This record gives sequence, C-alpha cells and structure tokens, in this order.
Amino acid sequence: MSGEAHFHAGTLNTHVFDAAIALQPLRENVFRGCTSPAYRNMVGPYGGITAAQALNAVLLHPERLGHPVALTVNYAAAIADGPFDVVARPARTNRSTQHWTLEFVQAGQTVLTGTALFGLRRETWGADEQTMPEVALPAEYPVQQWDRPGVKWLSCYELRFVDGGIPPVWNGQDQGESRTRLWMRDDPPRPLDFAALTALADVFFPRVWRRRPLMVPVGTVSMTVYFHADAAMLRATGSDYVLGQAQAQSLRGGYFDQTAQMWNRAGRLLATTHQMVYYKE
Amino acid sequence: MSGEAHFHAGTLNTHVFDAAIALQPLRENVFRGCTSPAYRNMVGPYGGITAAQALNAVLLHPERLGHPVALTVNYAAAIADGPFDVVARPARTNRSTQHWTLEFVQAGQTVLTGTALFGLRRETWGADEQTMPEVALPAEYPVQQWDRPGVKWLSCYELRFVDGGIPPVWNGQDQGESRTRLWMRDDPPRPLDFAALTALADVFFPRVWRRRPLMVPVGTVSMTVYFHADAAMLRATGSDYVLGQAQAQSLRGGYFDQTAQMWNRAGRLLATTHQMVYYKE
Repeated sequence: MSGEAHFHAGTLNTHVFDAAIALQPLRENVFRGCTSPAYRNMVGPYGGITAAQALNAVLLHPERLGHPVALTVNYAAAIADGPFDVVARPARTNRSTQHWTLEFVQAGQTVLTGTALFGLRRETWGADEQTMPEVALPAEYPVQQWDRPGVKWLSCYELRFVDGGIPPVWNGQDQGESRTRLWMRDDPPRPLDFAALTALADVFFPRVWRRRPLMVPVGTVSMTVYFHADAAMLRATGSDYVLGQAQAQSLRGGYFDQTAQMWNRAGRLLATTHQMVYYKE
Repeated sequence: MSGEAHFHAGTLNTHVFDAAIALQPLRENVFRGCTSPAYRNMVGPYGGITAAQALNAVLLHPERLGHPVALTVNYAAAIADGPFDVVARPARTNRSTQHWTLEFVQAGQTVLTGTALFGLRRETWGADEQTMPEVALPAEYPVQQWDRPGVKWLSCYELRFVDGGIPPVWNGQDQGESRTRLWMRDDPPRPLDFAALTALADVFFPRVWRRRPLMVPVGTVSMTVYFHADAAMLRATGSDYVLGQAQAQSLRGGYFDQTAQMWNRAGRLLATTHQMVYYKE
C-alpha cells in the first residue's frame, strides 16, 4: 500500500498513539488510515483508537471549523489488519457550528459510520454538575497488570483501578452494580488532546463483565463522546492522569449501555461518553 | 407538493403523531416528509418529532432488519415549514445488526445528519441497574399548563412534573442542580412504540433553564437514544404514562449535555438518552 511511511510506530520522535491515528490525504474528503499492531484487540483494533482516527480525519480536514463538541461512531464490522479509507464530509457549515459525516471503507465495504459536530466555543456561565468522586491520588492505587498477551492495546495505557476493577473471580455471580472508577493515562505519557481523550472514552472494560463476572462475548456497536473541555483545559491537563467513571444503566436482550465521565485531577469534567454494547448469554 | 394526502392531521382515524411522522416513498432510500403545524416549536419543529421522523424512515424501509437499538440525530439547521427529503441508507447489514445513515435535505441543503443501529434482539441474562426513582402515581401530580401559545408541540403531550419543574421565578439564581422528573405521555394518549418513545426523549425543557432560571437562547445540536425496550415491552406499556428523569452533567463554553432515562410504570427502563445543547450567555 502507499503511504506506509506515515505509520512509523516506534521511531524516536513519534508517540505510538500519533503513529496509530496518522492519516494520509488521498483526495477530497478521503484519507487513508491503517490499523496499528500496538492497539490490536482480540478481534480487530481497539475501538478507542478507531474513534480517535475518525475524529482525526476532521481535525486534519482543511475545511474544519472550531473544535470537537460531539462525536458518534458506529462499529459496523470488525476492521481487518491493514489499510482502510476514512471519508469525512462537511455536511453543513454554519456560523459557529459544523456538522460532519464519517465513514470507514475497507475492501469496498462500510466498516464504520459516524457523525461529528465541531464548533467555536464562547465564554458563558457554566458549572460542572457531575462532580468528581472523592478518591485518593493515583499513586495510591497499583498499576493494573495484564495477563492477556493477545490484547495489545492494554499496553498503551496505564490504568490504576480505584474500585470496581477487573473481577478477581469469574464466577458469574451478580454483583448488583457495574460501576468502575480508575485513574488512566497513555503509556508512555502523552499530552492530552481531543483525539487522545476520544480514545480514552473506550478504555473501560465491558460493564456486563463487571456486573456479572463471566467473559461472555461482547462488542461495542455505537459510542458517543461529548466534549466539555476546550483546548486550553486539555493543555492544562497535560500528560497527567484522568479519572474515569463508568456504569451500565440497563443490560437486556443482548445489549447493554455504558454511561461514563472523565475528569482531570483539578476536578474539571473533560468529557462524558456513552456506548451501546452487544453481548451474548 | 405531491403527497399532501399523507399529512392528514385531524382526520378521525389518524393520531396527530402518526400524521406528523408520515413519510412518502420517493425513490430508493429517499422519503418525503413534511413539518407538522401541531409540533411547531419556537423556531422550526420540535426536535423530538424530527428524530421520530428520522427513525420512521428506517422503520418504513423495505430492507430494514430488526428493531431500533441506537439512534443519533444531529440538528444541523432549523427546518423551515414545509416538505423535505429524508435519506435513509442501509450502510451495512450483518447477520443480526444493521447500520443506517440518515440525512434530511431541504432546499438542497443538509438540515439533519444521523445514524441508526437496528438489530435482532435475543434473550440474555439482564438487569435494570438504573432503577426507577420512588415517586407517587401520575394522578398525584397536576397536569402542566402552558402560557406559550407559539410553542405548539407542548399541546401534544400531557406532562405531570414530579420535581424540578418549570422554574416559578426566572431570577437567574443558580439552583445547584438541574434534575427534573416527570410523568409524561402523548396527548391524546396513544400506544407507545419506538417512534413515540424517540419523540419523548426530547420532551425535557433545557437543563440550563432549570439550573439557572434565565430564558437564554438554546438549541439541541445532537441527540442519541439507546433503546432498551423491545416491541413486547412497549406493547405492555401501552398508552400509559412514562416516567422521565433528566439532568445535565456539564454546562460550559456554550454547550451543556443532558443525560436522561425513561421507565414505564412497571419500572422497566425503556430507553436512555443523551443530548448536547447549544446555549448563549
């Protein structure tokens, strides 16, 4: 394939995340992306890196107006290892908002659909109503160690579970709740930006595994990220940890939802995110 | 315009909601819709009826597989009174899931973008983790009366606020929270289905008005609905009231989010929904 020079994970100067989300312009509204071995999941890539690639197409687009406000991606099919086309079309540009449609195409088939809303933000009255839970500092919680060599993307994050961590026993007993809280950041650390925040939104392990410890088959089918942070707030966060909290509201008939929040250490709510996840059994 | 016979609000046999979401097939993947005077908002139509029209295009599509699982609509521009085209394209059909892209076009311009996920549901282990709040029966709360003759759609719903209702005083004082709970149903009553549930998801008044009673300009820019109910659960709900609960998580820089839940009287979580809303000041 053309453009392999853009996917240079492992060079001295490029963070593995930037290498993974790199896109090469092909023609108007179309970029070439490629799966990253570093972010491989059990089947196909980690959904967070795919969402970040989708957002990056808009970030790189010459007609982009402003910064991300909302992103929805639908995982229509597993992405095979290798290249794919990312189609990002500015469907509507207003004075202060811009609406995008997104599609990933691989081997002539749609493998992702999505939409994004970008906008110019202005100063207004404001408040964080969903306040950060009171937890101890990141160093108080051990770094999660993994025993799943096939799930490569876990090595790209430093996760420190506060509560609701990976079940110690997979006994299928209903735990009565699915909430998880954890400190998290890229590994190696990397200054937070909109793409990295998008990828972090998918870092929580499946809520059905937390609620009822059984490794049933799962797959996120749709994810939405609402960006509350502006660029200055992300810069202020830098490469520091982000506190994440995730919980299911309903699990039924083969699908469960997840609602989640992400704060920086100063307690600012950077993003809220939701997903719908397919599960079996 | 052609097809006006489809928009026969007020006949004896057609509920105003069904008349409003009616669509006429034009050609492959394209339907003709029309704004409904009954669901008029201050500027353009009520967002809930627009979302229901978008869903209805998939429901009516001859290639549809299964029932709604997730829907995202982005309100790209105000829809002018009159007809518009609804484009619903099956982007990917799998064995048990189907991904759709949605677009409304009026006068050659995109006025809505969206995506939908439909699927075949199967019996699995399940739980409603977000349990219904303990509130009194609908009859214990008065029917909300309105003094806003320009906002027609309010007459299409019977709303009984439990708490967090319309501010009695518009004094701009920070209320410290934005939560609202209410019983709600179509007026006149109509058996609940996926389209009506979608429209109900937008029924909550703007959270920024609840948190800080000032009628600042607002407009929903993106809404997502996750369907937890299947068709049987909706049939069991019938034309009874639904309990809604909505709250903002963050209000900042000209946008706030809303996260909401909808239960039937039996306490089953029918849907969860999120939206991002533009506001000024």
